[in-house]
Amino acid sequence: MHDAVHAGPIAHTPEPPYYAVVFTSLRTDGDAEGYGAAAAEMERLSALQPGYLGIESARGAEGAGITVSYWASLEAIQHWKQVAEHRIVQRMGREKWYRRYRVRVSRVERDYGWERPRDP
Amino acid sequence: MHDAVHAGPIAHTPEPPYYAVVFTSLRTDGDAEGYGAAAAEMERLSALQPGYLGIESARGAEGAGITVSYWASLEAIQHWKQVAEHRIVQRMGREKWYRRYRVRVSRVERDYGWERPRDP
Repeated sequence: MHDAVHAGPIAHTPEPPYYAVVFTSLRTDGDAEGYGAAAAEMERLSALQPGYLGIESARGAEGAGITVSYWASLEAIQHWKQVAEHRIVQRMGREKWYRRYRVRVSRVERDYGWERPRDP
Repeated sequence: MHDAVHAGPIAHTPEPPYYAVVFTSLRTDGDAEGYGAAAAEMERLSALQPGYLGIESARGAEGAGITVSYWASLEAIQHWKQVAEHRIVQRMGREKWYRRYRVRVSRVERDYGWERPRDP
């Protein structure tokens, strides 16, 4: 499962249905180092949880970021939300790292993709 | 509806249920100017469509980007996918701007958020 984190920016999810948690946030200016370390550790730890399917993340220069994590069930999402280390980092996020955020829990109904053909 | 695009990085969506289209992409290196202009025009045009609820977008320095658009119904998503100008830009994306992408259509079941209290 670790491979999914390092396989590139687009997660290799199974056939729908599955679940997506869209986390959209606006950063404060401070503590880039502490934030980066915690974000990496949460990516590592989330990948070890039951029902984890993958993660995608992007943050622009203006401080707006979107992380989408994919899960097999609502129960898996609820479990990860309650993991002790994750709860600590959630609280640190409110204390230090975020100006605001929004979380949307959704059920993926269908998906499709495209990949550039390789040169012959 | 235009206000939603300019109100900041986090969309002001209504109470669930509603729908989210998660578009995750990896850019080519080329045509930053043409890509930026087309992306801005598609944000403007999507906001005029029936059922549009908002949009969020982030792209990191490494070329990985996530755009999430929110819609009132699956019909609204299907309609926007078929708008002529949008179809042209989809084709240009495959010809010039993207190495690969994945689209996930999902139904938002619940959402919640947090905002930093202002200093007194």
